[in-house]
Amino acid sequence: MTRKIVKSKYHFEPDLIETIGEVSIEEIKPWGSNDELKIIGKPTSRIDGAVKVSGEAVYTSDVILPNMVYAKILRSPHPNAQIKNIDTSEAEQLEGVLYILTYKNAPEIGWYYNTSYLFDKQVRYQGDEVACVAAESEKIAEDALHLIKVEYENLPFVTDAVEALKDNSPKVHEWGNLPRGNPDKYKRGDVEKGLKEADLVIEDTFTTQVVVHNTTEPHCSVAKWEGSKLTVWDSTQAIFNVRDSIAASLQIPASSVRVIKKYMGGGFGSKLEAGKYSVIAALISRKIKRPVKIVLDRREENLAVGNRPNSIQTLKAGVKKDGTLTALSHHSIGSIGAYPDGAGCSWPLRTIYKCENVSTEEYSVFTNTGKSRAYRAPGHVQGTFGLESLIDIAAEKIGMDPLEFRLKNYTDKDQVYNIPYTSKKLKDAYEKGANAIGWHRRNKVPGSSNGILKRGIGMATQIWWGGGGPPAYATLKLNRDGSVNVMAGTQDLGTGTYTFIAQVASEVLQLPIEKISITIGDTETCPYCGASGGSTTAASVAPAVRDAAEQMKAKLISGAAAILETSEEKLIYAEGIISVKNDPSKKITIHEIISKMRERVLVTTGARSANPEGYMINTFGAQFAEVEVDTFTGKVRVIKIVAAHDIGRVLNPKTLENQFHGGIIQGLGYALMEERKVDSNTGKVLTANLYSYLIPTIMDTPEIEVIIVSEGDSMISSVGAKGVGEPAIIPTAAAIAHAVYNAIGVRIKSLPITPDKVLNALTLIKR
Amino acid sequence: MTRKIVKSKYHFEPDLIETIGEVSIEEIKPWGSNDELKIIGKPTSRIDGAVKVSGEAVYTSDVILPNMVYAKILRSPHPNAQIKNIDTSEAEQLEGVLYILTYKNAPEIGWYYNTSYLFDKQVRYQGDEVACVAAESEKIAEDALHLIKVEYENLPFVTDAVEALKDNSPKVHEWGNLPRGNPDKYKRGDVEKGLKEADLVIEDTFTTQVVVHNTTEPHCSVAKWEGSKLTVWDSTQAIFNVRDSIAASLQIPASSVRVIKKYMGGGFGSKLEAGKYSVIAALISRKIKRPVKIVLDRREENLAVGNRPNSIQTLKAGVKKDGTLTALSHHSIGSIGAYPDGAGCSWPLRTIYKCENVSTEEYSVFTNTGKSRAYRAPGHVQGTFGLESLIDIAAEKIGMDPLEFRLKNYTDKDQVYNIPYTSKKLKDAYEKGANAIGWHRRNKVPGSSNGILKRGIGMATQIWWGGGGPPAYATLKLNRDGSVNVMAGTQDLGTGTYTFIAQVASEVLQLPIEKISITIGDTETCPYCGASGGSTTAASVAPAVRDAAEQMKAKLISGAAAILETSEEKLIYAEGIISVKNDPSKKITIHEIISKMRERVLVTTGARSANPEGYMINTFGAQFAEVEVDTFTGKVRVIKIVAAHDIGRVLNPKTLENQFHGGIIQGLGYALMEERKVDSNTGKVLTANLYSYLIPTIMDTPEIEVIIVSEGDSMISSVGAKGVGEPAIIPTAAAIAHAVYNAIGVRIKSLPITPDKVLNALTLIKR
Repeated sequence: MTRKIVKSKYHFEPDLIETIGEVSIEEIKPWGSNDELKIIGKPTSRIDGAVKVSGEAVYTSDVILPNMVYAKILRSPHPNAQIKNIDTSEAEQLEGVLYILTYKNAPEIGWYYNTSYLFDKQVRYQGDEVACVAAESEKIAEDALHLIKVEYENLPFVTDAVEALKDNSPKVHEWGNLPRGNPDKYKRGDVEKGLKEADLVIEDTFTTQVVVHNTTEPHCSVAKWEGSKLTVWDSTQAIFNVRDSIAASLQIPASSVRVIKKYMGGGFGSKLEAGKYSVIAALISRKIKRPVKIVLDRREENLAVGNRPNSIQTLKAGVKKDGTLTALSHHSIGSIGAYPDGAGCSWPLRTIYKCENVSTEEYSVFTNTGKSRAYRAPGHVQGTFGLESLIDIAAEKIGMDPLEFRLKNYTDKDQVYNIPYTSKKLKDAYEKGANAIGWHRRNKVPGSSNGILKRGIGMATQIWWGGGGPPAYATLKLNRDGSVNVMAGTQDLGTGTYTFIAQVASEVLQLPIEKISITIGDTETCPYCGASGGSTTAASVAPAVRDAAEQMKAKLISGAAAILETSEEKLIYAEGIISVKNDPSKKITIHEIISKMRERVLVTTGARSANPEGYMINTFGAQFAEVEVDTFTGKVRVIKIVAAHDIGRVLNPKTLENQFHGGIIQGLGYALMEERKVDSNTGKVLTANLYSYLIPTIMDTPEIEVIIVSEGDSMISSVGAKGVGEPAIIPTAAAIAHAVYNAIGVRIKSLPITPDKVLNALTLIKR
Repeated sequence: MTRKIVKSKYHFEPDLIETIGEVSIEEIKPWGSNDELKIIGKPTSRIDGAVKVSGEAVYTSDVILPNMVYAKILRSPHPNAQIKNIDTSEAEQLEGVLYILTYKNAPEIGWYYNTSYLFDKQVRYQGDEVACVAAESEKIAEDALHLIKVEYENLPFVTDAVEALKDNSPKVHEWGNLPRGNPDKYKRGDVEKGLKEADLVIEDTFTTQVVVHNTTEPHCSVAKWEGSKLTVWDSTQAIFNVRDSIAASLQIPASSVRVIKKYMGGGFGSKLEAGKYSVIAALISRKIKRPVKIVLDRREENLAVGNRPNSIQTLKAGVKKDGTLTALSHHSIGSIGAYPDGAGCSWPLRTIYKCENVSTEEYSVFTNTGKSRAYRAPGHVQGTFGLESLIDIAAEKIGMDPLEFRLKNYTDKDQVYNIPYTSKKLKDAYEKGANAIGWHRRNKVPGSSNGILKRGIGMATQIWWGGGGPPAYATLKLNRDGSVNVMAGTQDLGTGTYTFIAQVASEVLQLPIEKISITIGDTETCPYCGASGGSTTAASVAPAVRDAAEQMKAKLISGAAAILETSEEKLIYAEGIISVKNDPSKKITIHEIISKMRERVLVTTGARSANPEGYMINTFGAQFAEVEVDTFTGKVRVIKIVAAHDIGRVLNPKTLENQFHGGIIQGLGYALMEERKVDSNTGKVLTANLYSYLIPTIMDTPEIEVIIVSEGDSMISSVGAKGVGEPAIIPTAAAIAHAVYNAIGVRIKSLPITPDKVLNALTLIKR
């Protein structure tokens, strides 16, 4: 640390402290209980709430630039076809049409790991990009799409993953329908041996459907050039990924691309990559020298921006009479759509329960449908439904309470790597969740309650990562008036990132949250952080912010010591005032310190430190559902969900509850209604809109009780937060399904649990 | 420094280097001669040149936002008046008028050091703000101004500084016409004693006029609110000053205000503060909830945004026959207009020449005219004209060559603080400048050449500060593709700041300048730097950028050492590739290093180190002018200016020459034509436009030869640049005036040297 007071003799330099250089602070002590904190863990309204409610917040889809034009994308109506020719001449004649991009005039930009091009002559699913029209208005661009004449040669196609695996199936890509030619396999111990040791072997098959992210804000970009520099406003979860992809696609330096995302209406994993629309907007903008905006519509959202792959899971468990699991195996098939991705979903089975003998085999299969993408806890949501259903069955088969069965196979060690968790409070979650739902109230005999409306209670377990880690940086600027700017290269998906950053800075510097302004979501000006995915944002960014704030506090104390002519150890910092311990009359404010310096702003940069080696960081949770099944209509109503989780430290109970509510409602949709349906005869999506693709509304929303059983996990960072986004959704569908079974006494093994399936199941009983 | 390779066993973490922490680099060795450098010191085109020429560059006055409205300011037509009433009712009726702000509904915001308000009932000069109308278009707003009825009570006024000092003069402020009640005084040694020791005492009076900055881009702001956060696009030289002033005016945290300035069409000191228009735009925008744009027009530029104060300077010098200066005194009066400022101009006299006995007395006087503001080398331009004229006279009086006289009184020590300069190469400037102009060609007897067109040669000396210093920070981001983003809290006035920052990064990292992108001019996202004034920008910012780049290089070497499993000392960095000294086959690129890390971006922050204590940092220079005077019309044509300067290291000869050309042309305007004229009977400005206020055009521009006699000053920083902006203008007018004297043989002691003054002077000779 370098500092000095300059007793200047120059008239133009008043007495100043020279720049306070880097201060070295001791390793930051992890926070204790939230009870000891003032802002962290306290319900805090979103700092961006007011502008969102008032409509002032400018989302990417709201960006309007002078001279901006609009572009719309023509998409393939066919599931598999060769484009023989495109005639855009008529469309070009339409007044207001400015430019049309097709495979004929677009640069050859590789896409989907170079299995295709930005505009390819081969289209492989209904929705694949064929052309793009830029025009003076969105309406004109849309009209022009109808005037483009595309000559297609239709080819055989396959929309079903199981079909696609057959030898005689049409091939989506010439080298076959398995991206790497083989399934993904995992094995530990000896499953056959384990099954032999079992008293009972249970085997069953469970299926889950394809669901679509259907974010509130559609995927969109606005691209604007200034000379050789490109700015893209993008609705994205990963500004730096988008930047680097666009730069690589256009073969320009990444430093020449600026990606900005201020507010966003949801991503759920569908916005982790640069979309074709972003690159198309940039290409057209460069050509016509005007800003270009592309906003996908709801139909495109349902066709072309990703989905959660379906699954056909066949699971086997070896169980001893006392409940011990001796073996687990998992075989799954899932459609990844037309381009490379993964549909594996065996991870929960590999790791939730103590089991020595495990094997999994996952088939991620090409089909002529829209490509899958990461979707909130990819794999885990499907896999948890399969695994937890099997566990429920196993418990019942040996006559054990399903909760007790889970406790019997509880483990404090990660099962894949055989290392301990930094912390695991799943037992508390089981206990508190069971109490809250009234676990004892469940039907001892499933389906045994009377009446048309039958109630049942079920539960399921969840595991996820989410401990975060480096890289995450935050820069903190303390202004002369004691106000603070914090910058981080992260982005807010709508989950409350702005707010927790402000809370952390407020907590450390003991300054009112109103004085703290947050800037994120800008690749050019913000320090680097990774993508907002995997429930890692708060766990990664919060410690970086704390580090920057603690450094700032140390700088202030250092400056105060210089001015008050005392040593740093004798000083106390409280609410922006630094005073001498035994002489509180000797004190100085932030304002006074900075006023004594040449700077009007002090700057620090903090970083997320590394995670401990040899430990696994996971979140855990259990959700308990109570449902009411109308045995007359087959409709399932979810009465209540209790979500009891270990997610490390709660930063903000308000936004935490928001995320749980969102995840649970999304999980409810997955359990009961959402499903992308493809007509296997035509290869066309039957549900590319929000009247046939049903998502839950407020009328479907149950009572939700969120119970957090954890405090800060001091092993992972100075803040000890893990992550919330994904844990919230993982066990919901399984818990609901088990509650339905508990209500009606027949297990529905195929999601979504729609009224027809319920009625069919009830018919089975009656027979 | 912390770094490690993680041999990870987790499937989701490939082999990575953990974050490379802070690397400590040894003190950066100052660069040697520019010959040893590749980019620095080489003519480099502006990186923002193309977008400026193409018109793509968005200056503040070009900013257009959705839903934006335009505002125009009503200004007092009177030099001194009390507003009795304002009736805006008729104006409000005009269709398209949205809001009108006057003293009646504006908050009481103190202005001009609280000697007035944002909107005051008392107006003190023609141009003082009276009301502001916001409307759907600029035209409607302008029309509405005419419909506002203001009832003024006219009061006595004074427009002349000498008049204003008289006891019976009207008082601009009730406490008198001297801001602090007394003149500013300085004294060292004993002037009376010095004068007694002299062989000759010379006394004379020189006057200079008021000139107006008349920047190409007018003063302007666009204000936009989002909730409680305000963004202001402002044409300013000091984004952080503007931010803090606006925040203080509106009583909101500085962190809630973001000031952005990307490109600017000149400031010259007139844009160092927040203008009333900025705060007015913010107030109206908050009220009507739409973005508000205010762009001043040329008339307002001439009335209300500052000027260089005039001066009436009476100087006295004691001179020995051998040329030794025994005493110097300076008495000056200058009008600062209606609000507090300074008009002192004695600094050059205090310090340029070796002299033990010096006294100065400066009267900065209120008058009912537009307020003065800093204008390119405030004080020095006026003072240099006075001092250098006196020196020229003194030299002639004792029959000495004026250049020889100056060398006789040369000093290597600052005369005010009696400390050495870090470097001073003025002697070289004298020698090289004299050679370049052909000093021997001057008329030995002034005015002795024949013919109607008489030529003459003159010269003058210049001193200025401009060594820069802390605080200045730069953040450098190195992207995975080897491209670089650099950010600094400085701003480009149009002088080439973007370009030298890119050059420094390019030089250190040996990467092509096309890969380097610069972001400055944003208070929210850029690290802090001070105002762009005082010729300090390059001298302050360039070392900060170098520091950041050197740290980055050290990080890369550190990362390479980890990956190549060798020690850092054994590695060589060249053009983005790091190789082992004795085994060039072992090498790794930037891309490969960053690809081995979790980061896609490496970040470093550099800072400007402190200047050495006990030394004075100054720039020095001499300009030589050759003029041709048409003795028939009285018109002076400047044939050639040689500018020979010591400005430390040349970063970019191209932009350096640009700045010298601009400064010299502006100095020529000051010498020959520019003058704000006020009618003392009405108090009105007679020249508030560009057809009566003459500024030089390309037709007035002489041949300019720039000679830099200095290299990097290694005492001040690792870069060793001083500053160019102000040195360029300081001696020009004096050199031209002396050349005119040399041509016609009669000395014109009053600027500007207009044809009428020349003809009058020639008439005097003839008599």
